[in-house]
Amino acid sequence: MRFLGQFAQARDLLLLPPRIGRGEGIGRLVFAHCLGDAEALRQDVDQGGVDIVDAAAEGGELRVACGVGIGHRGGAYHAQARNSKLAKPGPPQQCVRAMTADVVPLPRRRPTLDPMLALTAHGMNAVNAVILERMQSDIPLIPRLAGHLISGGGKRLRPMLTLAGADLVGYQGARHHKLAAAVEFIHTATLLHDDVVDGSELRRGKAAANIIFGNPATVLVGDFLFSRAFELMTEDGSLKVLKILSSASAIIAEGEVSQLTAQRQIETSEERYLQIIGAKTAALFAAASRIGAVVAECGEREEQALDDYGRNLGVAFQLVDDAIDYDSDAAEMGKDRGDDFREGKMTLPVIFAYARGTPEERKFWQAAIAGHRTSDDDLAEAIALIGKYDAVEATRERARHFAARAVDAISIFPDGKARAAMAEAAHFAVARGY
Amino acid sequence: MRFLGQFAQARDLLLLPPRIGRGEGIGRLVFAHCLGDAEALRQDVDQGGVDIVDAAAEGGELRVACGVGIGHRGGAYHAQARNSKLAKPGPPQQCVRAMTADVVPLPRRRPTLDPMLALTAHGMNAVNAVILERMQSDIPLIPRLAGHLISGGGKRLRPMLTLAGADLVGYQGARHHKLAAAVEFIHTATLLHDDVVDGSELRRGKAAANIIFGNPATVLVGDFLFSRAFELMTEDGSLKVLKILSSASAIIAEGEVSQLTAQRQIETSEERYLQIIGAKTAALFAAASRIGAVVAECGEREEQALDDYGRNLGVAFQLVDDAIDYDSDAAEMGKDRGDDFREGKMTLPVIFAYARGTPEERKFWQAAIAGHRTSDDDLAEAIALIGKYDAVEATRERARHFAARAVDAISIFPDGKARAAMAEAAHFAVARGY
Repeated sequence: MRFLGQFAQARDLLLLPPRIGRGEGIGRLVFAHCLGDAEALRQDVDQGGVDIVDAAAEGGELRVACGVGIGHRGGAYHAQARNSKLAKPGPPQQCVRAMTADVVPLPRRRPTLDPMLALTAHGMNAVNAVILERMQSDIPLIPRLAGHLISGGGKRLRPMLTLAGADLVGYQGARHHKLAAAVEFIHTATLLHDDVVDGSELRRGKAAANIIFGNPATVLVGDFLFSRAFELMTEDGSLKVLKILSSASAIIAEGEVSQLTAQRQIETSEERYLQIIGAKTAALFAAASRIGAVVAECGEREEQALDDYGRNLGVAFQLVDDAIDYDSDAAEMGKDRGDDFREGKMTLPVIFAYARGTPEERKFWQAAIAGHRTSDDDLAEAIALIGKYDAVEATRERARHFAARAVDAISIFPDGKARAAMAEAAHFAVARGY
Repeated sequence: MRFLGQFAQARDLLLLPPRIGRGEGIGRLVFAHCLGDAEALRQDVDQGGVDIVDAAAEGGELRVACGVGIGHRGGAYHAQARNSKLAKPGPPQQCVRAMTADVVPLPRRRPTLDPMLALTAHGMNAVNAVILERMQSDIPLIPRLAGHLISGGGKRLRPMLTLAGADLVGYQGARHHKLAAAVEFIHTATLLHDDVVDGSELRRGKAAANIIFGNPATVLVGDFLFSRAFELMTEDGSLKVLKILSSASAIIAEGEVSQLTAQRQIETSEERYLQIIGAKTAALFAAASRIGAVVAECGEREEQALDDYGRNLGVAFQLVDDAIDYDSDAAEMGKDRGDDFREGKMTLPVIFAYARGTPEERKFWQAAIAGHRTSDDDLAEAIALIGKYDAVEATRERARHFAARAVDAISIFPDGKARAAMAEAAHFAVARGY
């Protein structure tokens, strides 16, 4: 039996690890011993991992609340220990020898980005200062336009990945602040150009920059931020980082062009779609994460692990983004609802609904993706068809696969705050409804 | 008396240097001796330099045809030697002791880009190979769109500046080929984005990329080429070059945004205009030239001289571009005639005509620049007003000033093919009619 530390929020905890990871069997071992007769829970564990989200000893009983791991659709559970046996007095890790528990379902707890936000809060202050300083220009329109998007409530997930990655490998310096800002500038430039490319009207719930400032200024300020990103990297002076981010930038552009050529093409396959989002979204996630290891100069194995984490997380993130655009349960989004539909973008929910549809439904999709059915009624019909074939959930299922791969990729690193925050960020990416 | 070599096209030449430079008095020395009594020509020389464009000995006479240097508006001359005296038999450099000549005006010879093309022909083959190779992508639309512009007959002046600069400082390696390609990619990306920003319909006499491929693809392929430029620089590995070109790229974007905010602003001053073109055009000319010295690692003085050459040449080049758009004498251009006028761009010919105009004419300009008078008749009226105040010639006069500064800047380098070609490129930039 392995013990991985104390559960932070449960002071009377006997033996449970703070989080039961997936993929290394740690969680399974612990549960197999602790909750030997909890068949329902054991099945979940066998299916791919369970998170313990709360645990406390009350009298002779151990209460355990379990979140559900990636890859499992069930709810959470309350596991009530019945016969935890203490073999001898002493620290719980060395005392508990056997335990069984009754398991009852609990309301499910959603993973959040909070641990990631907490982990990177200090560093993000420094990154934000760089962003604010380096988006300035003597031409007042530049900071005004850039600021509209930059202060517009983005999650700044990508620079956070750089900071978290650096934290995970034990980097102590400050180089990654500039580089994380460079990553965010590249992302912001891409968003500005995307809004022009798509003719977007809303971005993050506000009027898109192109609507307020026009396409010309939006294109040019994107170019400015892109140039600033390379200035920041050059100041840092790492050719390795420059190689990673210049290559990622070219791949992003290729992905965007590829998406453009797939637009209104009903026969786009899942494979092609995955290629597109791998380029347009995941390449920057991968680069952002990898840079954390590059500044720490900790070796190719660690770099690759962080690259894999970011890449899979990026794919999961984009899949969920695309699912949300058709999710009838989803809360109101910042992004203009139904944009993908009206633009004839072939995202995975549509690919699924089209593949599974009747001949008549396929005719609807052909017309819709070709741009002949773009009314609100048509959008409602599309959402209904996607609901009929559970295509949003199927897309999220795919996303969970990639998120699981992301979590697995960083299992080479010691467990701790950074790894836990990054794992929960992956959980969050697929569980989020906005 | 100094002799600088044989005049290439005149096999019977006695003593004339291949080209008489400006700023070092070489031309003056030679002419003072050779053409002692040619007052008209001597005056030209005193005013700032004369080019010898042809010379031949016929019978006992030396025929000399002279082009006119920068800073002088007069024509060319035919100088017929009357009493060239050969002191002794032997090579002409050591034999001619004195000479006078009759000087008659000749049709003026236009400077060309030919010496620059000849100087860089070999290197440009290598640069073009890099351009062709690195504009490729698995996404077929990318090379198709990029190729439309890249193979569309541009002069590729900027990469030539890198090659010529490297030649001037005696660089022997091949690093500058990739870097010159990077410069051209940045330029091409800028042109693609410009066409979207301006809504151009023609570029270099062909339909602009945005007309054929649409704005979205044009923006994104610009981004792709921009990224490729930084990939090329990163492969080269010079942080100095990366700094120069990332900084230049940010300045270009600032210049473009600045131009956008000056658009339709009738009160734009010549100073503001010079700031704008200094950023949007001259910054890349300067960077391209400077890189020639950077790869040769020859020192800050040489770098700065080449930077100054490129920057002044860039300003001159843009001034003439802007003059040509209103030049009633100019040949048909690739650029859509009157684009600047219809877009309400405040270029120097307009600034001059507005400043010199009557109150009524100013009202016309106010309405036109505000976008209320954009018909063909309005354009004809604008060209007539610009003609009335000689504003095209005044703009070219300004251009000649900057071209002269460009030529002066490289006078620190030894005379030779490279310097002569670069000087003539500056002459060409201001004399060209297209």
